Amino acid sequence: MTTTSQLLPISQIAQHYQIHDDYLIPHGKYVAKIDLSIIKANQNNEQGKLVLVTAITPTPLGEGKTVNTIGLSEGLNYIGKKAIACIRQPSLGPVFGVKGGAAGGGQAEVLPMETLNLHLTGDIHAITAAHDLASAAIDSRLYHEERLGDEFTAKTGLARLNFDKERIIWKRVIDHNDRALRHVTVGVGGGVNGIERRDGFEITAASELMAILALANDLQDMRKRIGNIILAYNTDGNVITAEDLEVAGAMTVLLKEAINPNLMQTIENTPVLIHAGPFANIAHGNSSVLADRIALPLADYVITEAGFGSDMGMEKFFNIKYRQSGIAPSCVVLVATVRSLKSNSGKFNIKPGQPIPKEITESNVELLEIGAANLAWHIQNAKSYGMPVIVAINRFPHDSEEELAFLQQYALAHGAFACELSEVFIKGGKGAEKLAQHVVKACEMESKVILPYQDDDKLIVKIEKLSQKYGASKVNLAEQALKDIQNIENLHLDHLPLCVAKTPMSISADPALKNVPTNFEIDISHLAISAGAGFIRVYAGNIMTMPGLGTNPAYRQIDIDENGNIVGLS
Amino acid sequence: MTTTSQLLPISQIAQHYQIHDDYLIPHGKYVAKIDLSIIKANQNNEQGKLVLVTAITPTPLGEGKTVNTIGLSEGLNYIGKKAIACIRQPSLGPVFGVKGGAAGGGQAEVLPMETLNLHLTGDIHAITAAHDLASAAIDSRLYHEERLGDEFTAKTGLARLNFDKERIIWKRVIDHNDRALRHVTVGVGGGVNGIERRDGFEITAASELMAILALANDLQDMRKRIGNIILAYNTDGNVITAEDLEVAGAMTVLLKEAINPNLMQTIENTPVLIHAGPFANIAHGNSSVLADRIALPLADYVITEAGFGSDMGMEKFFNIKYRQSGIAPSCVVLVATVRSLKSNSGKFNIKPGQPIPKEITESNVELLEIGAANLAWHIQNAKSYGMPVIVAINRFPHDSEEELAFLQQYALAHGAFACELSEVFIKGGKGAEKLAQHVVKACEMESKVILPYQDDDKLIVKIEKLSQKYGASKVNLAEQALKDIQNIENLHLDHLPLCVAKTPMSISADPALKNVPTNFEIDISHLAISAGAGFIRVYAGNIMTMPGLGTNPAYRQIDIDENGNIVGLS
Repeated sequence: MTTTSQLLPISQIAQHYQIHDDYLIPHGKYVAKIDLSIIKANQNNEQGKLVLVTAITPTPLGEGKTVNTIGLSEGLNYIGKKAIACIRQPSLGPVFGVKGGAAGGGQAEVLPMETLNLHLTGDIHAITAAHDLASAAIDSRLYHEERLGDEFTAKTGLARLNFDKERIIWKRVIDHNDRALRHVTVGVGGGVNGIERRDGFEITAASELMAILALANDLQDMRKRIGNIILAYNTDGNVITAEDLEVAGAMTVLLKEAINPNLMQTIENTPVLIHAGPFANIAHGNSSVLADRIALPLADYVITEAGFGSDMGMEKFFNIKYRQSGIAPSCVVLVATVRSLKSNSGKFNIKPGQPIPKEITESNVELLEIGAANLAWHIQNAKSYGMPVIVAINRFPHDSEEELAFLQQYALAHGAFACELSEVFIKGGKGAEKLAQHVVKACEMESKVILPYQDDDKLIVKIEKLSQKYGASKVNLAEQALKDIQNIENLHLDHLPLCVAKTPMSISADPALKNVPTNFEIDISHLAISAGAGFIRVYAGNIMTMPGLGTNPAYRQIDIDENGNIVGLS
Repeated sequence: MTTTSQLLPISQIAQHYQIHDDYLIPHGKYVAKIDLSIIKANQNNEQGKLVLVTAITPTPLGEGKTVNTIGLSEGLNYIGKKAIACIRQPSLGPVFGVKGGAAGGGQAEVLPMETLNLHLTGDIHAITAAHDLASAAIDSRLYHEERLGDEFTAKTGLARLNFDKERIIWKRVIDHNDRALRHVTVGVGGGVNGIERRDGFEITAASELMAILALANDLQDMRKRIGNIILAYNTDGNVITAEDLEVAGAMTVLLKEAINPNLMQTIENTPVLIHAGPFANIAHGNSSVLADRIALPLADYVITEAGFGSDMGMEKFFNIKYRQSGIAPSCVVLVATVRSLKSNSGKFNIKPGQPIPKEITESNVELLEIGAANLAWHIQNAKSYGMPVIVAINRFPHDSEEELAFLQQYALAHGAFACELSEVFIKGGKGAEKLAQHVVKACEMESKVILPYQDDDKLIVKIEKLSQKYGASKVNLAEQALKDIQNIENLHLDHLPLCVAKTPMSISADPALKNVPTNFEIDISHLAISAGAGFIRVYAGNIMTMPGLGTNPAYRQIDIDENGNIVGLS
């Protein structure tokens, strides 16, 4: 159960940050949406500095990236700056599945965490509804065109769309971990119950609409992007968009409230904007452009978090989000832990929920040094985008002074602008005092984003340039990938940036290759178009877009107690 | 686009009705949830009178029941009484499908209608999420038990549930008209993608959770009801409940906000509580007990609407909602129109969207007299429950004075307490001035609910008694129905009231039998148990629980304009 005793009414938080009541759309006492019109109102104000939080290669031990994003924003407030954190909204799937919530924790938590972890203000539900409206529209049109045959146009006044039943690429979505929905047959039995065909469900966070919500510049831009979504191909091989199906307007209407970012607060009353939650593999893995645009004129520092390691969410921040928004960070904060680096050494095969080997919990500088190569890689990777990099060591009780001292020295020796301990889980903003001071200094530096490829590079060149950044020696394109490239070029969509869908568990595309893989090849199986979001998905490995529930799912523990309070949610 | 210029901030509406800010959970400026704790706070206050609005047998012409429910509440305020309307929340399916919204209209409309017709505060989405969590849990458990075989218990510490794959009765839901989802195969391909089996989706309003939300007495009662839901049978033929699957707590947590009713206002600033939207065939078709309980101590009159005609929603109000809540209405208002009664004559085969025959639009007392028999039946039906009945003639421009005079005389001659014209669409509350005065008088009468059957009547007796009320000469039970009755008796659930799932388009169970059918038989195909909601569904005909989209779906017209306002929604 949340401790709300420290919380201030959200209107008071807003007032502190010059968000006038006129822009606040309250949802209960502690949450409000912020109307987008505030962006125009503040457009001539001085803009704060954007700080991008990323991490080393993730491990099952957890690095604490969200905790540190929230804690750093508290830390900046602690040293007298105005800061706002911008994070993604968690999906219900994991909440009821494996891990519980995504609100941070300890003294660096967003509250009330039940609100954050459950429906919040319904944005994800709105995406599910808008997405599945298009699915219903597709199957309905398919049915009526097939039912009425040559008379379709005469009877309806509509032109035939002639869906190619085998090339309907718009799947359905639902916000649950539901493995049985990965592959389904719809329209079973035919007749008035539709046309039988193979389909599947993905979790809502995987919807292209989620990426669009995160990338849209305003409502009209969202409308246009939704119209551009490619739903399917027709029997002549041409695309059928949401505009063609005349469903883009209704989809936008369903997202009209969802486009307004959600304001909450941390346990220390630092404002947090929560908005959108795209994955960092099949999408770009960052919270919304609109949240950043609202926050920047209101704060000295806006702290935002990118999904997975710097090879994933951070890369996509620069190549997708920054390309589209033009909003550059002033520095990158790279979160690491002693234990995770030891785990990244590749000497262990750690699985979630299993006991952690002693070598990892006991002081072991030699082991740490091996895994620290992963840290060095991520420092260099972030620096290659033109950013000063501050390493935040998320301190755990077991970490020895010797290990911590080694790591600080190591990070500086490998190019970090600064390296500092973070103790925000225990101490809140005070635990990030020094880290915040380094961030302030880094943001005073001149920095300019360096992008690894140009919009007009050939697709294959873009793929090769990114693969080189991972350290790959060679890229192998499957036949399907070559066909897809040809198709994308024919559609004149090859100017779009890439969104590499690969494992986050390795810098390479092979989860078995730990630490800093070298001399490996990358296999691209196929490409896909997110024409509304504005990127090309490049598949280097199988990406799971619909998780399953395990044998001991989290929902078993979640209930209300005799006072009606929620228990078992964390 | 909604005219919000007449609207007051919802906190002001609340204040007028002694709803203290402490109980208000604002959702934007014009909507608030009301915390259930207000019920306890007001439990010793004087209770207002409950007025139940029903209608003649519905026709494709529309009778205006919602408009008159809202208009009557305005009318009572107009004559100086305090009134609150309680209505159901519309589903997204029809909004994007055939008919647009369900907010009333003209001067008797709930505003902002976009908010009402779209997500409102997310209650329906919460039901979808809670319902489908149970579905994911079922398929996951099925998968893990089959995958681990005899080792399941040893490996998980859980007892096997042994789902009978062919008797999983908990379908999935989605809040769209999506015919292709009526019959689906899930788990296609098997392996890690689940166990392949036949399943189907219903529209969310058909979820048992929707009926539970509408019938629950408080949060703990909802928790208990959810635990009682029968999800499936096991291979030994015993029930598997949501409690058995350990998912009832999490489902309740997902509905923790949805249980609070939603406060909005009419165009004349009369408060309206919108809460739950169960169908009136496979469920009981009335808004929530909790909304009534909140409203009754705050107003002199609470106007609530029951689905379809008096044989459907009104019957279920008494036999299901009243039996469970103990809250009785003081009178029944029966809405009719001249045109609908002519249509009910059975002389025409009118379909939605097709031209209306001249005989119906031109003055024709003879024709009206034939169809008025339907009105007489519904008057007598409502009276048989012990209620004074006021007929509200929803006046249309074409209605002749002669017709209206005939109808008023006819209604009184056939047992109505009063019969009055209603012009609320054009005139708002003023258009229901006299109607409201009759309602006040009727509510001063002594009335006592008469129920047609007793809880401990045998199921077959209950079925026969209700069938006699429809006018049936005989009930035919299919073999499956007999088996189902046996099963329900074995489960000791035969004390529950019936929920007859039949067509609303006839007083009989055959939509072709118009006006007042006599000498007909009723065929019961099967029965089903809503153990959480607390009723037994008795199927007399095929009931569509997943609508489809037509060739000209409403979504085609819905969009945002250049100013970002919603267009095409009505």
